[in-house]
Amino acid sequence: MSLQDHKNLNIVPFVSVDHMMKIVLEIGVEEALVGITEYLEEDFRRWKLFDKTPRVASHSHEGVIELMPTSDGDIYGFKYVNGHPKNTKDGLQTVTAFGVLSDVHTGYPVLLSEMTILTAFRTAATSALAAKYLAPKNSECMAIIGNGAQSEFQALAFKAILGIKKLRLYDIDPVATKKFVFNLESKGFEITVCDSAEQAVQGAQIVTTVTADKQCATILTDNMVGAGIHINAIGGDCPGKTELAAGILERSDVFVEFPAQTRIEGEIQQLDADHPITELWQVITGQAKGRTDPRQITLFDSVGFAVEDFSALRYIRDQLEATGQYQDLDMLADPDEPRDLFGMIMRAAPVH
Amino acid sequence: MSLQDHKNLNIVPFVSVDHMMKIVLEIGVEEALVGITEYLEEDFRRWKLFDKTPRVASHSHEGVIELMPTSDGDIYGFKYVNGHPKNTKDGLQTVTAFGVLSDVHTGYPVLLSEMTILTAFRTAATSALAAKYLAPKNSECMAIIGNGAQSEFQALAFKAILGIKKLRLYDIDPVATKKFVFNLESKGFEITVCDSAEQAVQGAQIVTTVTADKQCATILTDNMVGAGIHINAIGGDCPGKTELAAGILERSDVFVEFPAQTRIEGEIQQLDADHPITELWQVITGQAKGRTDPRQITLFDSVGFAVEDFSALRYIRDQLEATGQYQDLDMLADPDEPRDLFGMIMRAAPVH
Repeated sequence: MSLQDHKNLNIVPFVSVDHMMKIVLEIGVEEALVGITEYLEEDFRRWKLFDKTPRVASHSHEGVIELMPTSDGDIYGFKYVNGHPKNTKDGLQTVTAFGVLSDVHTGYPVLLSEMTILTAFRTAATSALAAKYLAPKNSECMAIIGNGAQSEFQALAFKAILGIKKLRLYDIDPVATKKFVFNLESKGFEITVCDSAEQAVQGAQIVTTVTADKQCATILTDNMVGAGIHINAIGGDCPGKTELAAGILERSDVFVEFPAQTRIEGEIQQLDADHPITELWQVITGQAKGRTDPRQITLFDSVGFAVEDFSALRYIRDQLEATGQYQDLDMLADPDEPRDLFGMIMRAAPVH
Repeated sequence: MSLQDHKNLNIVPFVSVDHMMKIVLEIGVEEALVGITEYLEEDFRRWKLFDKTPRVASHSHEGVIELMPTSDGDIYGFKYVNGHPKNTKDGLQTVTAFGVLSDVHTGYPVLLSEMTILTAFRTAATSALAAKYLAPKNSECMAIIGNGAQSEFQALAFKAILGIKKLRLYDIDPVATKKFVFNLESKGFEITVCDSAEQAVQGAQIVTTVTADKQCATILTDNMVGAGIHINAIGGDCPGKTELAAGILERSDVFVEFPAQTRIEGEIQQLDADHPITELWQVITGQAKGRTDPRQITLFDSVGFAVEDFSALRYIRDQLEATGQYQDLDMLADPDEPRDLFGMIMRAAPVH
């Protein structure tokens, strides 16, 4: 954390959207995904020491605005994120986000960053990290159902972390699939465009569901899911929004990030509150088993948790010195004498 | 909200510390305090429609970091604020803060602002607003016990809103009082520097306690408080931090901002959880009585609440167009096609 030594503590480095694009392009998208996955794995290993709380949500008729805070005792972080499904038709993002890291010992913010792009990276990296522990060995083929804004990041994370070579794509809107193919056709995948979700899952060891519908939908029906696959369920991420038939959940071993949040927001909101689940950090630390049988169906019921944003922000912070991609914000008042806030303002007055 | 029309929704106006100083200097400190008090009064009048929750605190050995969100159904706001009493000895601010306003209908942030300075204004304006309804008629003299960073703002707010002309000052550190006198000696007050809190309260109709100690302290003992005064208690604002003897509380009519928070953080943490209190919004809307008797002791047990920050941010937002004191931040990713976040990043790559 070399920026810790930043001389003027009242100045906070800010990573804009443009800076974030330049950082990931300079590092390389796959390399950034690998880097973020490493930071995630480190933080999942020390999961127990984080101050964890379900996100603080403010719901409205049209969407939700959430704050997601956490702390490891040295660094505090939070993300602001909205979810407004109706935004797309107005040409706006469904999800926008920004985040902050602070020094727990002084309370001073030390980083402000855009997180619309960074959230896409951390979500894909978290999926790939879970699959590293849960997917069948030597998985080569992944189905991606839902080819929206998150889908390319998922594909590249699974390529970089698990060596996925073959993609089977389906979206109810062929335009979304076309965009995906255009974006990734030169990235070394063998891509098959499918006419249905049923066709997409055929032969895939990993099935990623990442649709954006806000209602309960059944993207995967029970008869579509055979033995020995890993399901990476991303889209079921708020109350009333699910993607999988309940029958699939009952045949699967379910792995989650933070049970208190997943019970409310994840696929398992369809199940009883005491349905057995395993926490991902337990698998990563070896305290619980991941995949134990090649015929087992594993399900990562991902809703996104504050610690993951914290890891991603830590990663970005550690890239600032090398890339120089940030600007200084005059964000914190810093009078010469801490008790003289009023005098500081008066001394800023122009001399006539 | 003319900035609502801001063409590029991905750009968020940012008010830096320097901008904030220029805004309040251009408007005038007392005029800004009056303006913020008007916005506060408007929001206290519609108190019931706000989405209210106690602040979300992350405690550490050295301090606390808090998020304070609220929403009126159209605008969402939150403040980030830390409290680190030990910071002063390292030459840092005990409290730093920044805040955000967002459009509830899109979830897009529409303002990012420093709030270290703005919090000082809103705290003083809230005190003055409460006193407008609770202090003895024609109060002219205020004692201020604790002459730190918040004290000058309190004095000017009470001058601007209530017509306070005489100040009686006391601080355990004479240097703090000296700073206060230096800062405000040309502002039209008759100032008396006192040797003790006991001396300071003599003849004052209003007593403001605004010390910064983190432990339970007794700034005012029971025998120092006579009939017919208004106590404006600012410093007791976190668990274990109080300023007044319990006996004073028992002889007073207690007025609070948000009971769920004040019971934990305010002076009344010393009393039973069912001790009768009145909410300030009820007095302002006429649903409850404020001062009913000239001999009554009224106590505003202030801890600060999210709605007050919301009001202050609204006020600042409405000053941006006229003052031009803000800068544009490239904070929200905005691809031409909402589902093509990945393509947006790729197209940002330099062409070789």
